[in-house]
Amino acid sequence: MYKVDLNSDLGESFGAYTIGMDESVIAHVSSANVACGYHAGDPLVMDKTVAACKAAGVAVGAHPGFPDLMGFGRRNMVCSPKEAKAYIQYQMGALLAFTAANGVKLQHVKPHGALYNMAGKDMDLALAIAEGIASVDKDVILLGLAGSKMLEAGKQVGLKIASEVFADRAYQADGSLVPRSKPGAVIHDKDEAIARTIRMVTEGKVTAITGEEVSIDAHSICVHGDNPSAVEFVKNIRARLEAEGVTIAPIADIV
Amino acid sequence: MYKVDLNSDLGESFGAYTIGMDESVIAHVSSANVACGYHAGDPLVMDKTVAACKAAGVAVGAHPGFPDLMGFGRRNMVCSPKEAKAYIQYQMGALLAFTAANGVKLQHVKPHGALYNMAGKDMDLALAIAEGIASVDKDVILLGLAGSKMLEAGKQVGLKIASEVFADRAYQADGSLVPRSKPGAVIHDKDEAIARTIRMVTEGKVTAITGEEVSIDAHSICVHGDNPSAVEFVKNIRARLEAEGVTIAPIADIV
Amino acid sequence: MYKVDLNSDLGESFGAYTIGMDESVIAHVSSANVACGYHAGDPLVMDKTVAACKAAGVAVGAHPGFPDLMGFGRRNMVCSPKEAKAYIQYQMGALLAFTAANGVKLQHVKPHGALYNMAGKDMDLALAIAEGIASVDKDVILLGLAGSKMLEAGKQVGLKIASEVFADRAYQADGSLVPRSKPGAVIHDKDEAIARTIRMVTEGKVTAITGEEVSIDAHSICVHGDNPSAVEFVKNIRARLEAEGVTIAPIADIV
Amino acid sequence: MYKVDLNSDLGESFGAYTIGMDESVIAHVSSANVACGYHAGDPLVMDKTVAACKAAGVAVGAHPGFPDLMGFGRRNMVCSPKEAKAYIQYQMGALLAFTAANGVKLQHVKPHGALYNMAGKDMDLALAIAEGIASVDKDVILLGLAGSKMLEAGKQVGLKIASEVFADRAYQADGSLVPRSKPGAVIHDKDEAIARTIRMVTEGKVTAITGEEVSIDAHSICVHGDNPSAVEFVKNIRARLEAEGVTIAPIADIV
Repeated sequence: MYKVDLNSDLGESFGAYTIGMDESVIAHVSSANVACGYHAGDPLVMDKTVAACKAAGVAVGAHPGFPDLMGFGRRNMVCSPKEAKAYIQYQMGALLAFTAANGVKLQHVKPHGALYNMAGKDMDLALAIAEGIASVDKDVILLGLAGSKMLEAGKQVGLKIASEVFADRAYQADGSLVPRSKPGAVIHDKDEAIARTIRMVTEGKVTAITGEEVSIDAHSICVHGDNPSAVEFVKNIRARLEAEGVTIAPIADIV
Repeated sequence: MYKVDLNSDLGESFGAYTIGMDESVIAHVSSANVACGYHAGDPLVMDKTVAACKAAGVAVGAHPGFPDLMGFGRRNMVCSPKEAKAYIQYQMGALLAFTAANGVKLQHVKPHGALYNMAGKDMDLALAIAEGIASVDKDVILLGLAGSKMLEAGKQVGLKIASEVFADRAYQADGSLVPRSKPGAVIHDKDEAIARTIRMVTEGKVTAITGEEVSIDAHSICVHGDNPSAVEFVKNIRARLEAEGVTIAPIADIV
Repeated sequence: MYKVDLNSDLGESFGAYTIGMDESVIAHVSSANVACGYHAGDPLVMDKTVAACKAAGVAVGAHPGFPDLMGFGRRNMVCSPKEAKAYIQYQMGALLAFTAANGVKLQHVKPHGALYNMAGKDMDLALAIAEGIASVDKDVILLGLAGSKMLEAGKQVGLKIASEVFADRAYQADGSLVPRSKPGAVIHDKDEAIARTIRMVTEGKVTAITGEEVSIDAHSICVHGDNPSAVEFVKNIRARLEAEGVTIAPIADIV
Repeated sequence: MYKVDLNSDLGESFGAYTIGMDESVIAHVSSANVACGYHAGDPLVMDKTVAACKAAGVAVGAHPGFPDLMGFGRRNMVCSPKEAKAYIQYQMGALLAFTAANGVKLQHVKPHGALYNMAGKDMDLALAIAEGIASVDKDVILLGLAGSKMLEAGKQVGLKIASEVFADRAYQADGSLVPRSKPGAVIHDKDEAIARTIRMVTEGKVTAITGEEVSIDAHSICVHGDNPSAVEFVKNIRARLEAEGVTIAPIADIV
């Protein structure tokens, strides 16, 4: 019997600004990555989002990012490992206040945006993040890109790790993502994306852009709730996975 | 046998900016109020400050303030109780990450600056703060101005409370501080300030500016480490209290 | 022949966050109040908004607010007059860079939100704002609430002033707005709101909530572009004003 | 007759935080780079600094940086050229408000920290900065590293440019600085540093770390006011330059 998690970024609104269709997508995912106030989110939004996750039975994760609200955490910043570690601790702690207040457990941490991408390839940064998480709560799962340095660092530090795959992205022969700047990086055909995902979950395989069969761990699928068609895609991929006998479950039930 | 706590604001540096003589004053106090990144402090500073407190045997408290770094949290802001509660939770959680990472307990929360002053007189705001603390950890002590609404709110919410007095401030007949804008608000004679403090601690009494004897709970004395003469004053008041047989101890040992 | 300005807040988006239907409302107004990065707006948004104003033939004003992005500048903050003056200068200068780059003139300054409200009643704050504007460019018009301290301060400092009225708000016998907390403060009937506005523009009179006839200067009408029905209202009020022979023109053509 | 400018970063204090010995160093320099609120500085500090420059007869320049107060603008951030241009415009405009209010001219713009370093090597970023400056005021001088892409970009855009040298840094054969990570990057002997600087100013030559004679334009020398010994060095280098017949003058008198 197969199981997989569907994770989505939630709680990215800030003050008077609303972003994302949180109320729509939350019904269809099993885990939420909640912004922690550095690149998005604010205390009221965090509280409301954790409460909504609890009500929907969705597991809560922290989604820490670079201190760059104006850039939504999407711009690479050259922070030292020491800084990155402290930023992870700070944001994780901030979210822990709201999970405590709402009586839920913090399931995982998934770094956001540029921090996620940089830590996927930079072992020093990845170790700093993993150590930051472990120093606050060593039972929290590190969710990161399949085959990345970040997961390697999590393992090394003794954290449970969960491997994330992307339905709509092409992979290279070494298991890494084809960079967005390259042709073919994004799979636009939704049926093909779903079929590939089902295969990653049930067979642990994906066909690389260059034709090779690549082994891949698919503990969690990254989905989005930015717009109506993204939400529609989440509903579809969930229905198709369930039709194939795959159970949708939070990552704590999987790894 | 008498006991009193000496508390000081620490960890108010930020990025490249250094403020306060933390390393000097930490040797002479029993509790520290650590800034949490909203009005002062940053993740690296918080971590370093908690580690320094641990090394010095000083109990750690959170010092949450308004989100006003440019004003150092000293300007009144009209936040709703819901906002204030969430800001307390956020900042308290952020500090809890660093107490967890350093293996120490969070002893207390003392709101900072304008938030402290406003909550001393505004029951709705005071309750929001007390509820914020209790929602995250109900064993944490609320440290606030003697006789203030903040302590009343802490009691009402079921928190342990600790009553703070000021060595160098005059009191009114109702136990409140003489506002700084009024003549005589500040006691400039250091010996007189110390003598008054000893009496507050050992007799639970202070003479109001209008001559009345006022009952006051003196669980903790607020001291400062801003400059060499402030640090000198802390050493003196500590020595004089100890000479009178008063033990200096963290508030968790007192309330 | 009658003339009036229609002013709307534009450029309140920030980073990845979009707020307001700027592209829709801009076609129907004569002046824009552009956020300057303190309570809303960012450099890219400011540039884009000034360029859009230029293309639409809409006059550009600065809309400075308190440094409170999380509260959208809607929360009262107790800044000193000196601080308020410097915040006005800073934000006005920042916008002047974009008017210079786009080859347009800065027509006016209208303080935002809590700053607007506080300065309407507080002469020290109002003078600080007026002095801030005059120190940077004494030909810029100060747009403020009809009958407010802010306009009085502008006059005193030697600025040209423009008096703003609200279509959907009730007035008191002294010409001030009925506070939103009081019953009857908001006029929900849109036809009545428009009829009252036409009378303010053409007769310079409004009927107070207590029945008195009140004289009022209506140089500019505050309208909104927050949602489709707000934009619809702007179209309607403009059409009705024009049907009554009132020309819609930027405030520089009026005062 | 030789002339050179001495420039120093001023106005880096923020809110309650003081950094730099502005009052000491200002007496010895001819140009100031004033922080504009993104990486350091705030509106009150900017106003005070411009006023102090005016009083001391020191020319005022803008010192825009990345929006990274926590990192003091010293961390590389991958901003798009469009973002960088808008950030330059915003900060330059903000400072122009204070030069206008104080009745002085804005002489130059010198990007700060990581932005300075990145733009020295990245033509797209350098052009964005140069275009940002020119769009606001094409008579303002761009001050940048001798031989850098930034100066090349300034020239290309039609700005006046000024070439900055470092007294205490070693140069490579191509005229670029020896990176700080390499041995010999910093010249610790103060007399040697001063002698090299005098030669750069009077002969337009510097000896590279590998022995070659390198041509270099020395319009301005970067000096610091961080601590008493830095200020002492500024006094010394000024005295020695003047003893050699070199006039210290603001860059507007030189380029």
